[in-house]
Amino acid sequence: MLTSRIHQFRSYLEARHIDVALLWDPDNQFYMTGFRAISYSRPIVTLIDEKEIQLIIPALEEAHAAEKAAADRTYVYYEQYAFREKPLTYEEHLTGILKSYPAPCTIGIEADILPASVYQRLLDMGFQLADIGGQLTKMRSIKSADEIELLKIAGSLSDLAIGESLRHARVGVSELEFDSHGDRLLLELASRDYPDELIGYADWTCSGIQRSEMPHLYSSTRKFTNGDVVVHSRQVWFNNYRAENERTFMIGNGTEKQKDLLKLMIEAQQVGMEMIRPGISAKDVDIATFQVFDKAGYGEFVQHRTGHGLGLSEHEEPYLRFDNELILQEGMVYTIEPGIYVPGVGGFRHSDTVIITENGSFSITAYPRDFESMLF
Amino acid sequence: MLTSRIHQFRSYLEARHIDVALLWDPDNQFYMTGFRAISYSRPIVTLIDEKEIQLIIPALEEAHAAEKAAADRTYVYYEQYAFREKPLTYEEHLTGILKSYPAPCTIGIEADILPASVYQRLLDMGFQLADIGGQLTKMRSIKSADEIELLKIAGSLSDLAIGESLRHARVGVSELEFDSHGDRLLLELASRDYPDELIGYADWTCSGIQRSEMPHLYSSTRKFTNGDVVVHSRQVWFNNYRAENERTFMIGNGTEKQKDLLKLMIEAQQVGMEMIRPGISAKDVDIATFQVFDKAGYGEFVQHRTGHGLGLSEHEEPYLRFDNELILQEGMVYTIEPGIYVPGVGGFRHSDTVIITENGSFSITAYPRDFESMLF
Repeated sequence: MLTSRIHQFRSYLEARHIDVALLWDPDNQFYMTGFRAISYSRPIVTLIDEKEIQLIIPALEEAHAAEKAAADRTYVYYEQYAFREKPLTYEEHLTGILKSYPAPCTIGIEADILPASVYQRLLDMGFQLADIGGQLTKMRSIKSADEIELLKIAGSLSDLAIGESLRHARVGVSELEFDSHGDRLLLELASRDYPDELIGYADWTCSGIQRSEMPHLYSSTRKFTNGDVVVHSRQVWFNNYRAENERTFMIGNGTEKQKDLLKLMIEAQQVGMEMIRPGISAKDVDIATFQVFDKAGYGEFVQHRTGHGLGLSEHEEPYLRFDNELILQEGMVYTIEPGIYVPGVGGFRHSDTVIITENGSFSITAYPRDFESMLF
Repeated sequence: MLTSRIHQFRSYLEARHIDVALLWDPDNQFYMTGFRAISYSRPIVTLIDEKEIQLIIPALEEAHAAEKAAADRTYVYYEQYAFREKPLTYEEHLTGILKSYPAPCTIGIEADILPASVYQRLLDMGFQLADIGGQLTKMRSIKSADEIELLKIAGSLSDLAIGESLRHARVGVSELEFDSHGDRLLLELASRDYPDELIGYADWTCSGIQRSEMPHLYSSTRKFTNGDVVVHSRQVWFNNYRAENERTFMIGNGTEKQKDLLKLMIEAQQVGMEMIRPGISAKDVDIATFQVFDKAGYGEFVQHRTGHGLGLSEHEEPYLRFDNELILQEGMVYTIEPGIYVPGVGGFRHSDTVIITENGSFSITAYPRDFESMLF
């Protein structure tokens, strides 16, 4: 898997006359090396040229990188007193490595990710810089069969978790408790069925009229009350590959208007899920779901695009957005999540993760989406 | 709280002849405006000049920002078809706002955070750029009384969570299940005691000789076995302020050597916790804990500094590192977490979060750290 990526990436670098690619983004580095760390304040850098993959890591990742990283050479920097005579910063290694390339040297960078301070240092050193972000996005947007297998597992696990949370949907349960029921079952079942694997999750629940109207909020300790509209969002990742699964549901006695909007959103999502396939454009999907809302008189309450790519990152380009002419292809992965947010009424959004196949698509998330299943 | 920060920050900008500060980092933006969103692929930008705080946000954050952000003006960009005639990108607003400043104009940027592409665009527009990252770090490193109150709550919640996880420390429990027990209790108790607040957490458990030797790994489905050394790390945040709480424990029959190293690490941590106070330097604390390990013959197995600042971010500068001459001050917050990682034996690290007071320090995390409490 890694070998063919590296091969494809090197061909691109060669065609663009880029001598070495400097990867800063953790997801891009994982994509190329299989190594991902909890990095925070300690930068990790991957350098890829025609011959070698080189990795710069902090000392505390040395054992981890030795086990996981497909790198030809590893450079360690230290922060401990015992090694005070050794390199103490990643910059020291980076400068040394880059200076070894004969001038004039062109470095490929992720322009939307590399920090300005590093960028300026590279300019000061006299390098030519070329943006390789688009190429990485493009490669990552088409998932291989191996990646799709991981995504499918993530999707099934997310269904189990969302079902367990929904089993606890009732008055008096807080948003965070609601999340935690699904989290716990997810980790219990995953531990039983997938020994020695990496599994993670993130979830957000926005309950009540005021909070559900805001598409993206962190969960709070607010407790569900009778008449709440609740938007529950969840991502689950299996060995770093993410599925998204979101459901909007109602607690107790919602109004007729809320019920109508829930049905309308479900219809819009269905339109998107049925039409997505290779050969149509990203914009077509976005405009089609919009039109469902618009015909019903709610076009102005749509606040976001229909979906985003995903995989290693929470959101990956390209997006299902009305101004994106991109023609969809087999192997792309998208969320389908048209939503409306009506002041004084509530927010309504389901999200499912679909994989585009040769002739159509299938959803890796399968928890029921119908209206009746969303009443608690 | 925000008012005095803004006032202090404006004085700094004025003294440095910076016309406007462009904040990109979500934590810095929250620090200055009280507003924080789940942003991912949709940039949010805060601009602060001598008169106004201006905020550029995606449409889906409009209601959220109206409720939370202390901003004088808000600029919205859209991604929905219904508003296709309106501004569709943050860049459109940013360019417009920045062009309104008379030339020559100096913009303050966070050089270690701002993406290279944005930085280059500002250079192309002819602006002078000045790094304001250090000032923001400096201001954030001294916590106010209000911030300390939030940190204390985060600390107590982390104690409850870690205790509940440890209650389930036994053979056959997976790392992820172990985490989830604490998570669940945390969310249950927090929901009971703190209605309508934001609470979050992150945890990582590295079990067994091989995994505990690596200081930073995501939790896996690996199940605890007899003789495991386990390093459990946890952060809990309360209204965005984070406490860190980590314990190393043993399951069943560990070796004498493992027990000795656990005791040694506890001793090193105690040395750090007892000495940290205003007036000593960051390096002194780091070197003192190192010496505990070194005298026992384990200096070479220290892999990281003694601690990091924290608050809004997981890791905040400045660090307790042997090459940091910084004199510690009242209001600074640090983890004290000296660790050793010995191949074939295991990794050993406790972490507690301490707040420096006028005359000394206190720990906001209080779960027992002694040797006997770490045997399961």
